[in-house]
Amino acid sequence: MDIGVVGLGLIGGSLLRRAHAAGFRVSGFDADAATREAARQAGYEVADALAGLADARLLVLAVPLPALATVLPELSGYGGLLTDVTSVKEPVTRLVARHCPSVRFVAGHPMAGKETSGFAAADADLFEGRVWVACLDEDTDLDDWLRLAETACALGARVVPATVAEHDTAAARISHVPHVLAAALSLLAADPLSRALGAGSFADGTRVAQSSPELAAAMCAGNAGPVAAELRRLVEELAEAGNRLGDHDAFRDWYAGARELRVDWPPEPGDVRRLPVTTEDLLSLGRAGGWVTEVDRGTRSVMVRQPQVSVA
Amino acid sequence: MDIGVVGLGLIGGSLLRRAHAAGFRVSGFDADAATREAARQAGYEVADALAGLADARLLVLAVPLPALATVLPELSGYGGLLTDVTSVKEPVTRLVARHCPSVRFVAGHPMAGKETSGFAAADADLFEGRVWVACLDEDTDLDDWLRLAETACALGARVVPATVAEHDTAAARISHVPHVLAAALSLLAADPLSRALGAGSFADGTRVAQSSPELAAAMCAGNAGPVAAELRRLVEELAEAGNRLGDHDAFRDWYAGARELRVDWPPEPGDVRRLPVTTEDLLSLGRAGGWVTEVDRGTRSVMVRQPQVSVA
Repeated sequence: MDIGVVGLGLIGGSLLRRAHAAGFRVSGFDADAATREAARQAGYEVADALAGLADARLLVLAVPLPALATVLPELSGYGGLLTDVTSVKEPVTRLVARHCPSVRFVAGHPMAGKETSGFAAADADLFEGRVWVACLDEDTDLDDWLRLAETACALGARVVPATVAEHDTAAARISHVPHVLAAALSLLAADPLSRALGAGSFADGTRVAQSSPELAAAMCAGNAGPVAAELRRLVEELAEAGNRLGDHDAFRDWYAGARELRVDWPPEPGDVRRLPVTTEDLLSLGRAGGWVTEVDRGTRSVMVRQPQVSVA
Repeated sequence: MDIGVVGLGLIGGSLLRRAHAAGFRVSGFDADAATREAARQAGYEVADALAGLADARLLVLAVPLPALATVLPELSGYGGLLTDVTSVKEPVTRLVARHCPSVRFVAGHPMAGKETSGFAAADADLFEGRVWVACLDEDTDLDDWLRLAETACALGARVVPATVAEHDTAAARISHVPHVLAAALSLLAADPLSRALGAGSFADGTRVAQSSPELAAAMCAGNAGPVAAELRRLVEELAEAGNRLGDHDAFRDWYAGARELRVDWPPEPGDVRRLPVTTEDLLSLGRAGGWVTEVDRGTRSVMVRQPQVSVA
């Protein structure tokens, strides 16, 4: 078997569908019997136990963080390459090191989601053109990394190399802190008059506060260190803005800097080029906002794109 | 003339169109000759000078805050009812008191906008179902207030009564602070890796940072006191969230309170009822999140709606 998928919710189910459509031999498993049945009814191969996926060359853990502590002890003898799709990487890496110290592992995070969840919401196009972070640290085997990257590229994703720490900091900035802010804004405008006056900026600024509190806590409390550090940076930025409120031009200039960044996002991709890879090259690519579009494991080279630098 | 509109940008132009369509005798003026010409070409009556609107029973100032200081001195002898559409009410009220102390004035703010601006973007449906705050303070004449409310209702808006101070605080909570946060988030995630990873929550949380820096400064620096106070409240809320990051359940409970508020927004309107009005009744209505849908100046009564209270 090429790929085994553990957990057939939104991400795992989408992975099962996309990998099957891409021609991989793929099988799934879910702890919930009804979910297994739904996936079988949809025409996919589903194992009745985790052990049924033991011969997969790549095993993807698509279960929530709390479930990893249950699943990982059963995988200590697994002989293939293990990866995951969890939204915080440091705790996962720690759990794998504890429960599966001899298993080959590359942490991953497809930056894809929807408001909906479960196998019924799974969508084969979920990863198309989206970022899939594949973590690369000093102790990561580059061949293992290339194998995961190759698979994620084949599923339509842009593969971004980053260390576990870099991922967790970036995720705090672009996802976890925004969730905290959306919740804080909802609480700030809790009085009926404010709620009556709320329009576009309130609607958008609070949208993700509708997320499941369990999921938000898994992300934010699960990434407590980086989230706390980024909240401190944000509060400093708010203090800077607050200090400028008394001076129209000073506030306008602060805002203009932010506007320029936002108007330029997402940046236009530059041309495709070939990169003979080392760990250092790949991490430099990720730090420059670039991604891998294709992997050639034979020559140990990758096709990559970087954002165009806007000319001021 | 029933209504005169000074400034034919997005809001003023929309007002001209809607008031004309609603059967009011309406005329406009804009300092810019090309804008006057465009409005005339579109079939509207346009004066060549501000003085041409002197006989309007209701004169609406739809110019930016900095332009008010130029326009108001010319209106000190105006005999009708004056209102405005500016997004911060305290500075406007102060300017009117200084330049037009004997003119009848009720401050207003239609909570409607678009990404676009100018007469070309004007839209007769802009106010349909949207909130139009009509300010009501101790020194506001209730008959004047009812006349403005009647007109705003006739243009399709929900008229919300609020004091100038209540308006400015609520606007800080639901519009000005969200603009500051969107800008701060853009600056927080300025590194290329974070920008590459940004997805839905970053996109939504930063959307309004694309606003014009001039406009953002007019709103935020123009409402410096309330915005600073609300930023302080927000930072306290972020500290509360930060303190709970170390404890999954404590963070989840904090988030769940915010989620409940957001999922319940905007609240469902309750039944229409008639309210014989006093200043106190109207302000209580606004504080409860309610609005006026119809005005009967003869009986000094209004038809009103309030949000349904959700049953826990």
